[in-house]
Amino acid sequence: MVKQTVGVIGATGYAGAELVRLLAQHPAVEIVKIGVRSTTTEDYLSQIYPGLSCKLPALTSLESSFSQCQYVFLALPHGISMGYVPRLLAEGCRVIDLGADFRFPNPSIYADTYEMEHQAPELLAQAVYGLPEYFREQIGQTDVVGNPGCYPTAILLGIKPLLDKDLIEKKGIIVDAKSGATGAGRGLSQDRLFTELNDNFRAYKVVGHRHGNEICFYAGKELEITFSPHLLPLQRGILATSYLTLSPGVGVEEVARAYQAAYSKEPFVQVHSQGVLPELRWVVGSNNCQIGYAYDPKIRRLIVVSVIDNLIKGAAGQAIQNFNIMAGLPETMGLPQLAPVV
Amino acid sequence: MVKQTVGVIGATGYAGAELVRLLAQHPAVEIVKIGVRSTTTEDYLSQIYPGLSCKLPALTSLESSFSQCQYVFLALPHGISMGYVPRLLAEGCRVIDLGADFRFPNPSIYADTYEMEHQAPELLAQAVYGLPEYFREQIGQTDVVGNPGCYPTAILLGIKPLLDKDLIEKKGIIVDAKSGATGAGRGLSQDRLFTELNDNFRAYKVVGHRHGNEICFYAGKELEITFSPHLLPLQRGILATSYLTLSPGVGVEEVARAYQAAYSKEPFVQVHSQGVLPELRWVVGSNNCQIGYAYDPKIRRLIVVSVIDNLIKGAAGQAIQNFNIMAGLPETMGLPQLAPVV
Amino acid sequence: MVKQTVGVIGATGYAGAELVRLLAQHPAVEIVKIGVRSTTTEDYLSQIYPGLSCKLPALTSLESSFSQCQYVFLALPHGISMGYVPRLLAEGCRVIDLGADFRFPNPSIYADTYEMEHQAPELLAQAVYGLPEYFREQIGQTDVVGNPGCYPTAILLGIKPLLDKDLIEKKGIIVDAKSGATGAGRGLSQDRLFTELNDNFRAYKVVGHRHGNEICFYAGKELEITFSPHLLPLQRGILATSYLTLSPGVGVEEVARAYQAAYSKEPFVQVHSQGVLPELRWVVGSNNCQIGYAYDPKIRRLIVVSVIDNLIKGAAGQAIQNFNIMAGLPETMGLPQLAPVV
Amino acid sequence: MVKQTVGVIGATGYAGAELVRLLAQHPAVEIVKIGVRSTTTEDYLSQIYPGLSCKLPALTSLESSFSQCQYVFLALPHGISMGYVPRLLAEGCRVIDLGADFRFPNPSIYADTYEMEHQAPELLAQAVYGLPEYFREQIGQTDVVGNPGCYPTAILLGIKPLLDKDLIEKKGIIVDAKSGATGAGRGLSQDRLFTELNDNFRAYKVVGHRHGNEICFYAGKELEITFSPHLLPLQRGILATSYLTLSPGVGVEEVARAYQAAYSKEPFVQVHSQGVLPELRWVVGSNNCQIGYAYDPKIRRLIVVSVIDNLIKGAAGQAIQNFNIMAGLPETMGLPQLAPVV
Repeated sequence: MVKQTVGVIGATGYAGAELVRLLAQHPAVEIVKIGVRSTTTEDYLSQIYPGLSCKLPALTSLESSFSQCQYVFLALPHGISMGYVPRLLAEGCRVIDLGADFRFPNPSIYADTYEMEHQAPELLAQAVYGLPEYFREQIGQTDVVGNPGCYPTAILLGIKPLLDKDLIEKKGIIVDAKSGATGAGRGLSQDRLFTELNDNFRAYKVVGHRHGNEICFYAGKELEITFSPHLLPLQRGILATSYLTLSPGVGVEEVARAYQAAYSKEPFVQVHSQGVLPELRWVVGSNNCQIGYAYDPKIRRLIVVSVIDNLIKGAAGQAIQNFNIMAGLPETMGLPQLAPVV
Repeated sequence: MVKQTVGVIGATGYAGAELVRLLAQHPAVEIVKIGVRSTTTEDYLSQIYPGLSCKLPALTSLESSFSQCQYVFLALPHGISMGYVPRLLAEGCRVIDLGADFRFPNPSIYADTYEMEHQAPELLAQAVYGLPEYFREQIGQTDVVGNPGCYPTAILLGIKPLLDKDLIEKKGIIVDAKSGATGAGRGLSQDRLFTELNDNFRAYKVVGHRHGNEICFYAGKELEITFSPHLLPLQRGILATSYLTLSPGVGVEEVARAYQAAYSKEPFVQVHSQGVLPELRWVVGSNNCQIGYAYDPKIRRLIVVSVIDNLIKGAAGQAIQNFNIMAGLPETMGLPQLAPVV
Repeated sequence: MVKQTVGVIGATGYAGAELVRLLAQHPAVEIVKIGVRSTTTEDYLSQIYPGLSCKLPALTSLESSFSQCQYVFLALPHGISMGYVPRLLAEGCRVIDLGADFRFPNPSIYADTYEMEHQAPELLAQAVYGLPEYFREQIGQTDVVGNPGCYPTAILLGIKPLLDKDLIEKKGIIVDAKSGATGAGRGLSQDRLFTELNDNFRAYKVVGHRHGNEICFYAGKELEITFSPHLLPLQRGILATSYLTLSPGVGVEEVARAYQAAYSKEPFVQVHSQGVLPELRWVVGSNNCQIGYAYDPKIRRLIVVSVIDNLIKGAAGQAIQNFNIMAGLPETMGLPQLAPVV
Repeated sequence: MVKQTVGVIGATGYAGAELVRLLAQHPAVEIVKIGVRSTTTEDYLSQIYPGLSCKLPALTSLESSFSQCQYVFLALPHGISMGYVPRLLAEGCRVIDLGADFRFPNPSIYADTYEMEHQAPELLAQAVYGLPEYFREQIGQTDVVGNPGCYPTAILLGIKPLLDKDLIEKKGIIVDAKSGATGAGRGLSQDRLFTELNDNFRAYKVVGHRHGNEICFYAGKELEITFSPHLLPLQRGILATSYLTLSPGVGVEEVARAYQAAYSKEPFVQVHSQGVLPELRWVVGSNNCQIGYAYDPKIRRLIVVSVIDNLIKGAAGQAIQNFNIMAGLPETMGLPQLAPVV
């Protein structure tokens, strides 16, 4: 099979390393370059992730040329990617950024959300939000994909079909989201110690989490939403419980139809029948999003539960799904469609 | 110290066994009788809980007399206690029921909620709901306490001060609650296996959980509430995130004042300052409830987080707190006021 | 690609379901039949494992014919497979049994170990022990493979190269092994509840575990060994710590050479340099075995640590590795060679 | 009750904070001073441990006088305490050091083990090793107690009765020990992140761990021992599996008698009958040590399993047990004798 030459920038965090793992096993990919911010030993990656027991290219600096790569993935903190993408494009690479720098088409929203000026605003018009279920066609044609955040992926897939058909009210939406600890990354801090997180559970940034803006922007409507993340004592997975109200005159059977219309042909989205609510482990380890819902007719309350693996569908897997689309490959290639049973 | 003679009925579940552990170390208690539903060997309790390494009375049948006990605690499934309480009262015992049978003053609410007729409706008028922060005086004078459910304890302590002062709207309340696995008890079922719950997280009974009725009844107002429980992969603890809306004209500073008025003298309730949200481990292992809140002024959304240990403040500890009140002992006697640091 | 037609018997346990998951994604496999002991609904498998979100053949009874299958995997409790294998062979299937019935060439060892008579002793002579690193050639030629136990896989891979070269003493061997909870299967019992295993750790069957016999038999020497398993509060993985003594005159540098000779060409075994001891998560999710060792020259003590994923290299993955060999396919096909990074 | 005035030096680590928690609830203790190495805000302790919801003295510097304290506990890293103890003694305090500085009577063993010179060697002769089951009388009379290490506590309580009666061979002893993550403390390091330890298990320092010397010294015999610690994905608890060989002519029934003789009157040690092996959760949360054993007569192998809570019997609880002895109080006062049931 013809291999696409691929580079990865920023491979030491969990999302970046998981990306390397999936790319290394992708049948149509050859990883030809891996750049990291602080180059250490050449085999640093397999030192910190000894499960990556395969031959990888030696680590190089971010400053070196990536012109031999047809595609480059960036897995860097927000604010860093935008410094490298213009040069990568100039070198002829097509780019998938797992960070936040190319998610918004509009530099002012970026500035409001991330409290810094965008350094490559001229690229934003061509950048596409990498949620394939909604932007597949544009993804195929662009050279810059902004891969969605993990929470927005889970939540938008869960509620967007209902919003698009005006089945639910736009005010009073509550999203109570729960994420595994890998969502917080590999950075050292006291509150990420095993002894502080294990046997524990907490809310954080219940007002003003940045992903709230991303959700609102791509919901496509003027929403009044409360988005409150919580931290679970487990490795991977996001479960979002969205509390919605059916619009006047709408029946719950229209919910099923809207999901069916939106996702029946999607390879990575499964919707359960009313009353069956997906659990985290039904998707962890796969690129799937599963969605379920329950309904309380007395108060017209619709409760939607959506689950993903934050490192796969919420990061590395979705990035590869976008790459497959860009490269004209089968969209599921190299991606786990089934979750480990336990 | 003069010891109160105490009996326990139903000691093999987690709440009952935890009750035995706390009573065995209580300075003013002598456990004189333990009755279980299926008597097995006399030392069965220390066989299934080898951490109860103390001398306990041999197990007896539920049918034997408890007349030598001044106080009897029942830790039985709902529907069972009400068959025993009339006889215990006739034998001169004062009774604290950890189950649901004596929580409602009204047999019709009981029947609606638990889908069975109450067998001792004549006792309900004298039974008192055992939430000391609100019913301390009545608890001291009754012979029958219905110990609150674990979820209602966490949630009522979190929102009742605001409801009592009409600071929040009564419609559109959402309570997204998360409980450790001991909340589901010790019964055998596939979905409680370690391998099914570990690394996992799920919602359950998001519409129609029985504790919803208990919360609404003791909230003391006509509420429109959505109560959705979830199951955490850890042993103990409930964290409830309540989504509220401040009433017109109310400022968030009144929230602080309402909590201060309600709890500043309570030995087992601590309220944090605005923006500090308690974590589970801050209370697990203690009889405390901790409460925090955050506020989003743009949409007048108030988010209240309340945490308890479901087996202590949510069951065995609160039962002993009620006993202390009934027996005229210091309310904190024999109860852990500090949580293990980790 | 030409697909091999494959059947699975016994797919509801963790090993069997994990086998179905891996086979469903194997590029050269078509699953044509799945038989279970108690047939329930046809889509029972995706009901109990909703992460198996793929089209699978409807479940059938064990009694139906498997003649359309070139290969049949059995994932049944020991004592059951031997009743089905003769018929499968007569139907022209080649068989890989994940249970214990075809691991020993000798019915008397089987009877001693499993305390029952073997029902198909005439087949034992042709059955091959499915540890590819040692029996690759015979596996390719047989019609019956007895897939090794999970503990024996980890332990034999760790110590056999040293025994084969007589580098270690045969007396006084201690193997302290620790397994995740999936090793105990999906059966209901009180001591497998989440609440009993979580935050807990225990030894079990420290004398007389059946896998001890399997280890001794395939070690190929008269060993005096103590094999003590323990149960870890996690899903998957075995870590075995083997305490050995170097034979007189042997230096620790010969240990490295023996491992190098045994495994340098093996796709699924990695040996670390002296002093680097593998952790569970370096292999969990992959078909790999990783081995490390440390040496205390004062008392000539060699400590070998070997790790595997008990459901993959210890069960389903190794079964597929054997299948690949039998079918003349690349040995790594369809098998995860890299572990998730976290 | 008359209160003893008590100071704590070093209260921010897990053992120190757990000590503060237990002392704050001890009926005969008044905490009058808490010194920390880097004084921050006065209420720093309840900021990092919000479960310590009680009134504590404001934090002070280590350099201030502790003369108002009858007893001072030090919970500092080894090498630090020995700089403070001479001054504390001069101020009239009796001292319990939870660190390693006063465990050995001999400065050269200290220097060998901790690779630094002892700074107060003149005090070592009067210091007593704080293992009450063996040194109760000396503890009562000294002014300096060196509280044992967590591993040595579990292991010595498990094997010392057998060594003292010469029931087991002194060569070839293997101790495979497993500890919860609090054993590694609260220091920041990548390998203590939740995401690195959860779902994981590893061996560490399998050759040359410092506690090995402490075990050998207090075993009271010339032992040839291999001590290999492992790290469990849970908060608290040590389980040590000791592999021993019965001496010629010794029967396993003598093992039971030796344990009975050693511990039948001990309030915090429970020995199970042959074949019953204690689990971690039987002791976690209590000051107990539980011991069990199994025997393989074919090879005269005795396997002893001993369990403790590393922060209580392995640190803070044992320190208070020593304090109770020194102060002439009941030895169990203020100490948890029963473990939470789950």
